[in-house]
Amino acid sequence: MLKIPSHQVAGHHASSATRGPLIDDSGRFYKPLQGDERGSAEVTFYDQFTSNMQIPDHIRKFFPIYYGTKVMQASDGSEHPHIVLEDLTAHRENPTIMDIKIGSRTWGPDASDAYIEKCMKRDRETTTVKLGFRISGLQIYINEGVGYYKPTRDLVLKSSVDDVRLFFKKFVSSDPNVESGMGPARDLASVVYGGPNGILAQLLELKAWFEDQIIYHFSACSLLFMFEKGLVLEGGSPNAQVKIIDFAHVTEGNGVIDHNFLGGLCSLIKFISVAIGDQNGHSQ
Amino acid sequence: MLKIPSHQVAGHHASSATRGPLIDDSGRFYKPLQGDERGSAEVTFYDQFTSNMQIPDHIRKFFPIYYGTKVMQASDGSEHPHIVLEDLTAHRENPTIMDIKIGSRTWGPDASDAYIEKCMKRDRETTTVKLGFRISGLQIYINEGVGYYKPTRDLVLKSSVDDVRLFFKKFVSSDPNVESGMGPARDLASVVYGGPNGILAQLLELKAWFEDQIIYHFSACSLLFMFEKGLVLEGGSPNAQVKIIDFAHVTEGNGVIDHNFLGGLCSLIKFISVAIGDQNGHSQ
Repeated sequence: MLKIPSHQVAGHHASSATRGPLIDDSGRFYKPLQGDERGSAEVTFYDQFTSNMQIPDHIRKFFPIYYGTKVMQASDGSEHPHIVLEDLTAHRENPTIMDIKIGSRTWGPDASDAYIEKCMKRDRETTTVKLGFRISGLQIYINEGVGYYKPTRDLVLKSSVDDVRLFFKKFVSSDPNVESGMGPARDLASVVYGGPNGILAQLLELKAWFEDQIIYHFSACSLLFMFEKGLVLEGGSPNAQVKIIDFAHVTEGNGVIDHNFLGGLCSLIKFISVAIGDQNGHSQ
Repeated sequence: MLKIPSHQVAGHHASSATRGPLIDDSGRFYKPLQGDERGSAEVTFYDQFTSNMQIPDHIRKFFPIYYGTKVMQASDGSEHPHIVLEDLTAHRENPTIMDIKIGSRTWGPDASDAYIEKCMKRDRETTTVKLGFRISGLQIYINEGVGYYKPTRDLVLKSSVDDVRLFFKKFVSSDPNVESGMGPARDLASVVYGGPNGILAQLLELKAWFEDQIIYHFSACSLLFMFEKGLVLEGGSPNAQVKIIDFAHVTEGNGVIDHNFLGGLCSLIKFISVAIGDQNGHSQ
């Protein structure tokens, strides 16, 4: 049984009018190939990455498992190829999720002038140029009764630097009035961002690889942060995970590190460190 | 006695027609203020930086000492304000020098559209976008008889990624036929780039600061590499030094790390690591 994913926070969505990703009960995620060269570029990346022996296992875990491609039939009978991936939220109950597009530039060296111009406009209007990343989407689990806080795409993209700082706080707050920030709240930063299995530790593991790897340049890729706020509030483990997704603009490294991704990743690491530090009461 | 500096490898040069930097016998370097807002921006930076208590001493040593400003009279009687700095080559005999402009973007967030367009063109034509840095100039000491190898500015700016790799090799080669690379040569990478006082160790010290500091964004700044090849060939210390210069486009950090400088710096560190590794016979 195929259905529309409940926990997608950014990217194209399936509807009656447009094609979007689907999931099934066995934990697979079907992403329609984008019609232009982006679709084939993403397939090429997954094919190449999956068989690349240079990728260490502790880095491979940050990437979705790839199951190949599959032609699927829509309800109107039309057929379209899909990339088949691991559904990253399949085993999660009520995931709190953030999608962050990394890099102060979202175009690669081979992009056309027209494409660069389009990206530059978006990069300057959002926090991409200022911060080296932008939040593309998020959902924050509140509780059983209320469900999720999920700001619109436009609201998220209009975020200022201060808004981004606030989103990183709200993301790990137990406040049921997350929009206003007026409710009783525990700051969960130390258990979600901090700790040996927290998001910061995972980002630092990725950073060490990016300081060295010269295989790929990950233009316009996103990092996903995911955790289970419900479990934390019951005293359990947050099950915090960082994943890297969206490889339609990956290019070869040609002996050069991906300084664009790495710079943005370091900026993100600083924000997360400050969010942990704020809670510990020291200013950075 | 004021004179034109012998060891300037990039930037504006003094001549009978144009104003350029001057040095004196006491080890001071006089840099004419650029006429537009760049000149005053650089003075503002030096004034602010010099009195900023947040700068650790081990970082301050990477910056030229600042002695204030001075109005100086040209031979035609006209007067012009200058920034008075430490002459970084004053105590050097025959310095081998490279000037590297850091960052994959040479414009700051407040730049005008016209200025961004101009910078983007240059950034894409040179290695700036690809590598996160570009070599702006260099001189390599050969020996007493031959003097220096000093490629033209145009040749340096036209460098491809492979040319940059080659410049980093030539920079630390004892080959007297440095242009052709055909002479008998010792690779001095391990003593100039490597070792506890080598260029790599200094770059890593800077990197650690850039991962944390949110005070300044150093748009369009350069790193200078300097050492004494003559001393190395006589079995002495290379006296390798890294300095950071040219602060006309520095802006406030506003709580965000300088991901543009840091990304380029990490890319440069990878190139230097590879240059050391090549010599040790292992590929990276």
